Amino acid sequence: MSDFLTTLRNLVGPAHVMTEGDLSAYERDWRGRLHGKALAVVRPASTDEVAAVVRACAAFGVPIVPQGGNTSLSVGSTPDTSGREVVLSLTRMHAVRGIDQANLTMTVEAGCVLQNVQAAAESAGLLFPLSLAAEGSCTIGGNLGTNAGGTQVLRYGNTRELCLGLEVVTPQGDIWHGLKGLRKDNTGYDLRNLMIGSEGTLGVITAATLKLFPRPAARLTAWAAVPSMEQAVALLSLAQRSLGADLTGFEVMGRFALSLVAKHMPQLRVPFVEQEGVQYAVLLENSDSESEDHARARFEALLEAAFEAGCVLDAVVAENLTQAQQLWHIRESIPLAQAQEGLNIKHDISVPISRIPAFVADTDVLLAREIPGVRLVNFGHLGDGNLHYNVQAPEGGDAAAFLREREDDVNKLVYGAAAKFGGSFSAEHGVGALKVDTLKEYQSPVALAMMRSIKQALDPHNLMNPGRVLGPLP
Amino acid sequence: MSDFLTTLRNLVGPAHVMTEGDLSAYERDWRGRLHGKALAVVRPASTDEVAAVVRACAAFGVPIVPQGGNTSLSVGSTPDTSGREVVLSLTRMHAVRGIDQANLTMTVEAGCVLQNVQAAAESAGLLFPLSLAAEGSCTIGGNLGTNAGGTQVLRYGNTRELCLGLEVVTPQGDIWHGLKGLRKDNTGYDLRNLMIGSEGTLGVITAATLKLFPRPAARLTAWAAVPSMEQAVALLSLAQRSLGADLTGFEVMGRFALSLVAKHMPQLRVPFVEQEGVQYAVLLENSDSESEDHARARFEALLEAAFEAGCVLDAVVAENLTQAQQLWHIRESIPLAQAQEGLNIKHDISVPISRIPAFVADTDVLLAREIPGVRLVNFGHLGDGNLHYNVQAPEGGDAAAFLREREDDVNKLVYGAAAKFGGSFSAEHGVGALKVDTLKEYQSPVALAMMRSIKQALDPHNLMNPGRVLGPLP
Repeated sequence: MSDFLTTLRNLVGPAHVMTEGDLSAYERDWRGRLHGKALAVVRPASTDEVAAVVRACAAFGVPIVPQGGNTSLSVGSTPDTSGREVVLSLTRMHAVRGIDQANLTMTVEAGCVLQNVQAAAESAGLLFPLSLAAEGSCTIGGNLGTNAGGTQVLRYGNTRELCLGLEVVTPQGDIWHGLKGLRKDNTGYDLRNLMIGSEGTLGVITAATLKLFPRPAARLTAWAAVPSMEQAVALLSLAQRSLGADLTGFEVMGRFALSLVAKHMPQLRVPFVEQEGVQYAVLLENSDSESEDHARARFEALLEAAFEAGCVLDAVVAENLTQAQQLWHIRESIPLAQAQEGLNIKHDISVPISRIPAFVADTDVLLAREIPGVRLVNFGHLGDGNLHYNVQAPEGGDAAAFLREREDDVNKLVYGAAAKFGGSFSAEHGVGALKVDTLKEYQSPVALAMMRSIKQALDPHNLMNPGRVLGPLP
Repeated sequence: MSDFLTTLRNLVGPAHVMTEGDLSAYERDWRGRLHGKALAVVRPASTDEVAAVVRACAAFGVPIVPQGGNTSLSVGSTPDTSGREVVLSLTRMHAVRGIDQANLTMTVEAGCVLQNVQAAAESAGLLFPLSLAAEGSCTIGGNLGTNAGGTQVLRYGNTRELCLGLEVVTPQGDIWHGLKGLRKDNTGYDLRNLMIGSEGTLGVITAATLKLFPRPAARLTAWAAVPSMEQAVALLSLAQRSLGADLTGFEVMGRFALSLVAKHMPQLRVPFVEQEGVQYAVLLENSDSESEDHARARFEALLEAAFEAGCVLDAVVAENLTQAQQLWHIRESIPLAQAQEGLNIKHDISVPISRIPAFVADTDVLLAREIPGVRLVNFGHLGDGNLHYNVQAPEGGDAAAFLREREDDVNKLVYGAAAKFGGSFSAEHGVGALKVDTLKEYQSPVALAMMRSIKQALDPHNLMNPGRVLGPLP
């Protein structure tokens, strides 16, 4: 292996082939589930260097783990414990290669941090709408590799829908120059979308051409207290009809999730949480291309109609940006509040929106029967059918023991229920190393067979992020 | 082969295995470029029957040409002249399987005619936005197979963006049940988008779950006369900023294209075409979620600003639906008007919007140098960067001879120019049998190698629409 490391050092410079010291930022996954051991962490500075590194790995038979900000929630971007895998870090490739105003596109390198992509768009007077909790650390390459979701999917789609072109280094170390800024291009198979969401198992994304949008003239936030999940879904339909594409956010939060925020962060002042009959709260965002006054008038009309229809018990429209941020802050504090309450079993499921009320009702009952006193931290992107339906130990119980002893059973129950309602066990977090067995259990065998054929065709020596997503190949 | 035909007759019934009589509706392509000869035309009635037919074809080694409405503009859905290929017609599978109001989705079978898909959505008070010239004949399966574009791409995307789930029969005759109505689902490779746009070469799409949208409260059309392509692009930017997602159509038409409509269809009364300095007209569509009055006020504000900025010389907003239809009718009459003027060499290119003015200026000059007196019928979906940049013989010339003698040279010149400006030779019509060599010339060799690997992995015996898209395989 010393020949191999020498080759790498010659390709990218000795300073960028790291084998010693504390490499835990590269070797440990975001949620601390696995601390792996890399043969080396390699940090190429250009697409040509990435291609050369991949060719060297192919020549020496060394598996590659592509890595961006290493914020995977599914253990998708860290090396295993064998010490045989190279981490290919894209963080030195962080340039914004260009912005095309009239074409509403931007070309960025894979290692660019999402927040910097957003900022570059903003400084051109435009919007890159992808937004998620890890945006200060995650990279656009990782967002593409996992087809990240976030809070703006309702209007703008997942990362997949925000990408027009890719530059990719293949498992053979060739460069596919697919950085097109075209909204229509039917010239063969859709390699772009095949690479997006393949979690580094089919190649290394080195750059992307992304869609940009005009910035809305005003963005307004409202908070509505609703009596049930059925009424939350009814409010969504009403909001879609009345606001059309201007409805850019629709987040739901269960009463218990909000009570944890109220308990652990009393300074946040959660609206209506004590009010009788309030089972859920909905956070709505309206992005208006005209003016704040116009946005406010439309929001008020919507909420009045919703109040009359019985979907909404009480509601408030943020008076200013600070208030809007406070409301979003409550939503974003749920993960922290539940952590303060103790570890819980996290899920990232999706279900057709029409079936969410029945899914929640059924699954709540199943879990309560299985685990008396169980507490459900239910919140998520209702507008996309995506719930983080998290399961917390009974009050006063040992949360660590609960997680250790019950996680498999609880997952089985929740994933089974999601599947029964036509849903998915992974809405936006992907498969990684964590959910390989879950994929095998819940994905269609015909689909799995096609995926394996594609993996073997494009990466016959199984060098790209091996074992992730599809597991060991035959 | 008589065993084979007997097998097919047993599977779908003798009436649905056609080998005699006039089969030209199945054997001749839409534009009459190729009259093939099928071994048989088979019309299964269900997904199970499709799977059984595919298994029979696989067992007997018979190639399959999947076919919907047979409206391909690239000879993608007709058999070759060998008499060895089976046409697998999906037209008996035309059911709307269901509409889910709250989830805004609809599940339809592949053979459902696009207009019927639209109508089913409308009768549920919802919108399926895909719209294109052949909508009365083409099927949704064909739209998906070719990733069709049309006039609403600017707001709603291509067919790809309108599909959430697929049911597909694989080349082995297995059924992939992927009819999910989920907006977020990251559970392995994106087989859906791989199948979409693969033109029947990777499997047979038998059904799809499609996105629906709330119907806009009002749809308003305007017609603007502009002095140049630069100003048409400037008007687009202005309209995107001012109307946001409500801008659902932005079509450009060159002066010569419009003069042909005025000449051959004088009853249509083309606005502003005689006015001095008018080089292009733009048709804008505004879909408003509030009211017609609101839509009109916004359109007027936009056009006033555009007039002041010098993008627009004159403009009219349709007073009512009839006027709007008349304006759209002018746009849609261009293909007919140019046909009446004589055959021409058609293109379906895309270029980044910012580069369209330079592309047109350069290519106009190149063509005029090559063919003195050449006439350019330039029109298309400017909002998507998609031009039908068609080349007409010099006035009084022999159009048929022109097409015969000059098509290859002209294509080479136009495709080369599109490539030089970062564009594509096929924006929305696909590759089919017609553009196999063009794909080889202009698609990246690295991408082509990946596509061939995928084809061989999924269809190792090369039975699905062989030769189309990628050409003969090694």
